[in-house]
Amino acid sequence: MSSDVTNLYAEVQQFYAMQMQRLDRVDAEGYAATFTEDAEFIHSPGQPGSHGRDGITGDVYKVAEQFETDPQQRRHWFNMVNLEPSDDGRITATIYCLVVKNRAGQKPEFVSCVVHDILARVDGELLTQYRRVEYDPRDV
Amino acid sequence: MSSDVTNLYAEVQQFYAMQMQRLDRVDAEGYAATFTEDAEFIHSPGQPGSHGRDGITGDVYKVAEQFETDPQQRRHWFNMVNLEPSDDGRITATIYCLVVKNRAGQKPEFVSCVVHDILARVDGELLTQYRRVEYDPRDV
Amino acid sequence: MSSDVTNLYAEVQQFYAMQMQRLDRVDAEGYAATFTEDAEFIHSPGQPGSHGRDGITGDVYKVAEQFETDPQQRRHWFNMVNLEPSDDGRITATIYCLVVKNRAGQKPEFVSCVVHDILARVDGELLTQYRRVEYDPRDV
Repeated sequence: MSSDVTNLYAEVQQFYAMQMQRLDRVDAEGYAATFTEDAEFIHSPGQPGSHGRDGITGDVYKVAEQFETDPQQRRHWFNMVNLEPSDDGRITATIYCLVVKNRAGQKPEFVSCVVHDILARVDGELLTQYRRVEYDPRDV
Repeated sequence: MSSDVTNLYAEVQQFYAMQMQRLDRVDAEGYAATFTEDAEFIHSPGQPGSHGRDGITGDVYKVAEQFETDPQQRRHWFNMVNLEPSDDGRITATIYCLVVKNRAGQKPEFVSCVVHDILARVDGELLTQYRRVEYDPRDV
Repeated sequence: MSSDVTNLYAEVQQFYAMQMQRLDRVDAEGYAATFTEDAEFIHSPGQPGSHGRDGITGDVYKVAEQFETDPQQRRHWFNMVNLEPSDDGRITATIYCLVVKNRAGQKPEFVSCVVHDILARVDGELLTQYRRVEYDPRDV
C-alpha cells in the first residue's frame, strides 16, 4: 500500500474520533462543522434526509431534547473503517457503528448500524459530504 | 517507530475491515480470497481446523445455513490490533474480536474472543495464512 | 495531515493494543512498564490516584484478587482515539473505553468510560505519563 493511502487511513480515524466525540458531548455546531456546507444526512432509510450544517445542527438539538426526560450519555463507536478512494478525490467509507447509551442505574444499551459516508476534502480539510445510516435488525 | 511499521498498521486495519465486512455480508468466496491458498483456520481449540480457500468457503456457508432458522445480521468487530512483524516478512497479529449478533425484536447478543493471526504477503497482497480463535468464558 | 502525525496515530493505536492486552492477561509489571516512572493514574474522580510503576503494579494485583472469587476474563477496548499533540512533544489523548467482563455461564458485562491520557516520549519510547478515567452513568 502506498504511504498516501495509509496516511489517509489514520487521518480518517482521527477525523471520526473528533467528529463523534463532538456529537456525544452535544457540541452541535462543532459537529455540524465536520460536514460540508452542502452535506446530505440520511438518518433512516426511506425518510427524507437533513441538508447542510443548519439541518444537521437542528437534528443534534432535537435528539438532545429527548435526554431531558431520558438522561443518558451516548457514545458512538466507529470501527472496521473500510475506505475506497475514488478518482475524483472523494472517499467512500463503510463503517460499523455501535451506539452505546449509558444511563444511571442501568446496563448500557447498544444499537448496531452501518454508516455509509462520502468524505470530501475542502481547502485541505477532510469533511463528510454524505452520510447514510443503515440499522441492523433490532428490538423496535 | 519507522514509517514502514506505521504504514503496515493502517494497511492491516483496512485489510481486516474489508475482510470481515465480506464475511458479514456472506460473501463466502470474497472472504476466502483474503486467505492464502494454504491457509489453516482453527475455529475452536481442540477441534480440527479448516484448510485452504475451499474449506473456508464451506465454513461460511455452513454458518449461514443457521441464519435460515435463526435470522440475524452478524457484525465482527476487530480491535486492539497488536502486531509483531517477524524477520521472515510474516506478521503475527493478536486481535480482540466482538461478534455482535443482531436479530429483529431482540437486543444485540455479544461474543468476545481473541483472534490469533499470521499474515503473509503474496505477490504484494496481504493475506491471512493462519487463524486461531480463542473464546472468552461465556454462557454456553 | 503530515505523515508525522499519521505515523504517530498508528503508533499510539499499537501502543494501546499492547498496553491493554498486557493488563488483560494480568502482566502487572509489563503493564506498569508502559507508564513513565513518575506516572499518575486517577482511577476514579475525587479519589487519590496511584503514583509510579510500583503503584500501578499494586493496583493491577488488587483488581486481580477479585478474580479469585469472581473469575472473569476482562477485555479493555480502546477506540475513537482522539489525539492532540502539544508543543512540548507530549500528546493529549481522549479515548473511548469499553471494559468487557466475560464470565463462564454469563453474558458479557460492559462498562463504558472515557480515558484521558497524556503520553510522553522517553528515550524514543511512547509511555503514558498521566491517566484519568471518567465513568459514564451506569448501574452502580
